[in-house]
Amino acid sequence: MAKKAAKKTVKKKTTRKTTAKKAEVKNAFYAQSGGVTAVINASACGVIETARKNKGKIGKVYAGRNGIIGALTEDLIDTSKESAAAIRALRHTPSGAFGSCRYKLKSLEENRREYERLIEVFEAHNIGYFFYNGGGDSADTCHKISQLSKSMNYPIQAIHVPKTVDNDLPITDNCPGFGSVAKYIAVSTREASFDVASMAKTSTKVFVLEVMGRHAGWIAAAGALASDKDTEIPVVILFPEVPFDQAKFLKRVDDLVKKHGYCSVVVSEGVKGPDGKFLSDQGLVDAFGHAQLGGAAPVVANMIKDGLGLKYHWGVADYLQRAARHIASKTDVDQAYAMGKAAVQFALKGENAIMPTIVRKSNKPYKWAVGKAPLSKVANVEKMMPKNYISKDGFGITTACRNYLTPLIKGEDYPPYKDGMPKYVRLKNVAVPKKLKNKFEL
Amino acid sequence: MAKKAAKKTVKKKTTRKTTAKKAEVKNAFYAQSGGVTAVINASACGVIETARKNKGKIGKVYAGRNGIIGALTEDLIDTSKESAAAIRALRHTPSGAFGSCRYKLKSLEENRREYERLIEVFEAHNIGYFFYNGGGDSADTCHKISQLSKSMNYPIQAIHVPKTVDNDLPITDNCPGFGSVAKYIAVSTREASFDVASMAKTSTKVFVLEVMGRHAGWIAAAGALASDKDTEIPVVILFPEVPFDQAKFLKRVDDLVKKHGYCSVVVSEGVKGPDGKFLSDQGLVDAFGHAQLGGAAPVVANMIKDGLGLKYHWGVADYLQRAARHIASKTDVDQAYAMGKAAVQFALKGENAIMPTIVRKSNKPYKWAVGKAPLSKVANVEKMMPKNYISKDGFGITTACRNYLTPLIKGEDYPPYKDGMPKYVRLKNVAVPKKLKNKFEL
Repeated sequence: MAKKAAKKTVKKKTTRKTTAKKAEVKNAFYAQSGGVTAVINASACGVIETARKNKGKIGKVYAGRNGIIGALTEDLIDTSKESAAAIRALRHTPSGAFGSCRYKLKSLEENRREYERLIEVFEAHNIGYFFYNGGGDSADTCHKISQLSKSMNYPIQAIHVPKTVDNDLPITDNCPGFGSVAKYIAVSTREASFDVASMAKTSTKVFVLEVMGRHAGWIAAAGALASDKDTEIPVVILFPEVPFDQAKFLKRVDDLVKKHGYCSVVVSEGVKGPDGKFLSDQGLVDAFGHAQLGGAAPVVANMIKDGLGLKYHWGVADYLQRAARHIASKTDVDQAYAMGKAAVQFALKGENAIMPTIVRKSNKPYKWAVGKAPLSKVANVEKMMPKNYISKDGFGITTACRNYLTPLIKGEDYPPYKDGMPKYVRLKNVAVPKKLKNKFEL
Repeated sequence: MAKKAAKKTVKKKTTRKTTAKKAEVKNAFYAQSGGVTAVINASACGVIETARKNKGKIGKVYAGRNGIIGALTEDLIDTSKESAAAIRALRHTPSGAFGSCRYKLKSLEENRREYERLIEVFEAHNIGYFFYNGGGDSADTCHKISQLSKSMNYPIQAIHVPKTVDNDLPITDNCPGFGSVAKYIAVSTREASFDVASMAKTSTKVFVLEVMGRHAGWIAAAGALASDKDTEIPVVILFPEVPFDQAKFLKRVDDLVKKHGYCSVVVSEGVKGPDGKFLSDQGLVDAFGHAQLGGAAPVVANMIKDGLGLKYHWGVADYLQRAARHIASKTDVDQAYAMGKAAVQFALKGENAIMPTIVRKSNKPYKWAVGKAPLSKVANVEKMMPKNYISKDGFGITTACRNYLTPLIKGEDYPPYKDGMPKYVRLKNVAVPKKLKNKFEL
């Protein structure tokens, strides 16, 4: 399904081309949006390095401090103050080097003021390119800016750089950020499964790992990669797409423990019971009656204890999974960089209101190319896991899913280390002097 | 402190030497005990490879299936059936390849039958060497076996191979298994801190990570390595050694968030309140009144929400931390192997009732050597963190602690990968034919 969609995109040529005034070299604005990933900085690296290689055609790259908020408040970072080595190091540094934010611009009708402010800031700093690095919401924002640019007659080319660990952007075969989380979850599940297998005779028999994914089970699905032909591991996946059936789940765990002596469970934070409530939302209270924060993993572990009397351990990967640059997928790093690079190249060709995409050409050997998609088709579309990716019993993945996922975790791309610790870069993040007199209240 | 102790050991020559009958080549027994680690198999590799290099002096290495239980039930694994490549692969495979167990032998007085059974099995399989790979409890067992060997007049050389992520064995400067957990926690804390720093402007301001360590704060201390001169990160460590003071803790978090915009908290699972109760033991109940499994991290996160109104995220590393061979410390892998190798070499020199130790020679550059300690001094002694390793405010580590920890996480030792996944070995684990008629009930 994902493959077909991607192919379609490549063939289509829909986007309106805005010709930037060639005479005047415009600056670029780049911002990071939403939850950060292990490789979003690799996209930033791709944007900045490609812009630097095209100095005659594109001016400075100004980054928004804390994402789009930096543009609204005219808090811009001058990336030209960073050395080539520092920018290169972004490729192996997780998190958002310029700061990200969770700040969704309202619709044009609801808050036109915000969009006008953006144009005002862009104009003040001679910005003609808008590179927005994020997920579905930011694709929507990016699209609106390109529309506003037209209606306000301020020429700006808006290009969206895809990023999301949730892997839920449409048209692109996969999203930068996802492959590295998938690798982390697959590797961690394999390692923890080896551990519990060693202990199962007299101690822990079930290990439960909670992973991200409120709506789509892509990350949870990666847990199934822990097991393969060479290393068979009993893994139960709990997808948000499959309503949780406690009796069926416990039976499955019981069967696997009887057969293998142990099993691992990978539970998505987004799993819901038949009542539509999140498993993690159990209305827990502590001894003082305070509401207690739950997680899906302890709830599932508790069921295993109460229902089967088996010794369990549970873990919650949380930020560790999306920040784990130390075990990033090389495919993912390469693609994240390529998306940033392509965004600038598309912009220099006069493209507007598009998003570079990853187009899968073949599985074995894995081959991919850069495509593009019109933002009108990307904004507000969430790509769920295809039904034929989840096994019939609802607890595992199909061969089609395995074939889709495997290339995305392929290859290692280790950061450099010093004294046993990864050398991640902290940029200077020098502010661009403000030019506007009026302040903007968020 | 640790250094002094280690030096002392090296000078002492206390152990009784049992001269194995040179004429007859005896087999060896090897077993893994207690919680497994990322590098316990590297010790197994050291034992087996060194025994194989000394074929004229030592016979086969039989491993206990599921640890000492395998010896009691005469369920032995013939490691000679494994290829050289498979044994070599143990060096990069986490978990216990032969199975481990949590099974503490009682005292000789309480259950002499168990010890007699061990001797019976050893005699049946011509076993003259007992290599026991574990923590404090297994050092004790190992010591008892050497004593029994004497009193029962069955010659067996008992050598303990140190292993514990808790780093709490005495005399040895550090314990194989700890360095890799420390590296995992340091790296993960740095990565998650970079993540939360990116998000702090509009979203998460505090990240809480729960780590292992019921009694000693060694693992929690490693979280402080996330921050260094190049990469200053505000980290609060909660040690089991320091009674938890909620008001002081919240003040500390508040101060750091005000100063840096965010902070990370590394909380040991063993942290106790002033009432002596584990923080994690909050008597939680779910909507149906069922007791709910807690963790220390969600409890701490809840305090931050209630007390400071800050947005938080929390993670629980659990088995991921001790199984994470993908980010093992090279120092740790080398030392784990060296301990296994030394155990066999000591045995061949006629040593008995000892444990090879790691002796720190210098910090910069880090140099270490193999020493030895008599089991009489190792058994039932728990090494806690020295007081001068914890900062005065109780929330961090001192320079002395940093100097101690840093070399232990140094170096990377990546496993080989196939299709994006680490190639960990699963041994054939062929059973040795039983020779005894009587079964043993555990």
